Amino acid sequence: MDFSIRAANLDDCKDIARMIMELAEYEKVSDHVKVTQKDLEQDGFSKNPFFHGIIAEVPEQHKTKEGYTEIGYALYFYAYSSWSGRAIYMEDLYVMPEFRGKGVGKALMSKVAQLALAAGCHQLNFTVLNWNKPSMDFYLSQGCFDVTGTMGYHCMRCEGEALEHLAQL
Amino acid sequence: MDFSIRAANLDDCKDIARMIMELAEYEKVSDHVKVTQKDLEQDGFSKNPFFHGIIAEVPEQHKTKEGYTEIGYALYFYAYSSWSGRAIYMEDLYVMPEFRGKGVGKALMSKVAQLALAAGCHQLNFTVLNWNKPSMDFYLSQGCFDVTGTMGYHCMRCEGEALEHLAQL
Repeated sequence: MDFSIRAANLDDCKDIARMIMELAEYEKVSDHVKVTQKDLEQDGFSKNPFFHGIIAEVPEQHKTKEGYTEIGYALYFYAYSSWSGRAIYMEDLYVMPEFRGKGVGKALMSKVAQLALAAGCHQLNFTVLNWNKPSMDFYLSQGCFDVTGTMGYHCMRCEGEALEHLAQL
Repeated sequence: MDFSIRAANLDDCKDIARMIMELAEYEKVSDHVKVTQKDLEQDGFSKNPFFHGIIAEVPEQHKTKEGYTEIGYALYFYAYSSWSGRAIYMEDLYVMPEFRGKGVGKALMSKVAQLALAAGCHQLNFTVLNWNKPSMDFYLSQGCFDVTGTMGYHCMRCEGEALEHLAQL
């Protein structure tokens, strides 16, 4: 299938917001999504951005019946490991259902890996939901490993009132 | 106990490198540490740093028998959640054993929470090793929750030859 991967720009935020919601619906947690198109514009495309994005795009003749040519995306940001140094964290990797199985996800992830190596990063980190077997199988087939399983890492979070309270100690 | 928390600077990299190794020894994985003082200087204190740090310091009269006044640290970097937006990731939180139980870890984590809120972040994310019950209990007592347990998040990683291979697809 004919598609291209390119860096996301400000005009992509509407499509990224749409696909973030599609991914959350797939993950059955669309009520968790608070991020809007405007947030993405401010947080990703002003000075000192909080994230970067790449877009998978098909030519006009392959657009969806709703008229979309932007059919996948990945968001990432630079991170750090105090053991191995520079790292990239891939926050999302998404391909619209009708375009899956054609190498789009692999091409997006490959681009993130290229960006990681170009920046001197030694790790690409991300999370996957334990019930999402198709994604887990894809990642394992690409040589990724489950740090929760092999080394006992648990993801922890502080947010909302707990975060406010912690800041006031 | 008398101590202060302040932003880390270039001159702290030697002490941060020392404490990264102490933390890794506590976690029984000191052979995993590849990061050197020079890496920390380059990666944390040049333009577009990959991380930021804060230091816990005691006055001269409370220095350790080895002469250290820098007795704890936290490393963090800005991150992003496609659901809730701006976030901070706390890579490390460490206090030297002889200074534990005196509120230093809580003060370091509180400072990270303050920095998070000041930057408009909604989440403070980090990982903990599943056998590290004292740390897990501390985090839970501060209102943090285990995203691996409650939502099934697994930490995944691609590195080394797998990362090189992925970049060449």
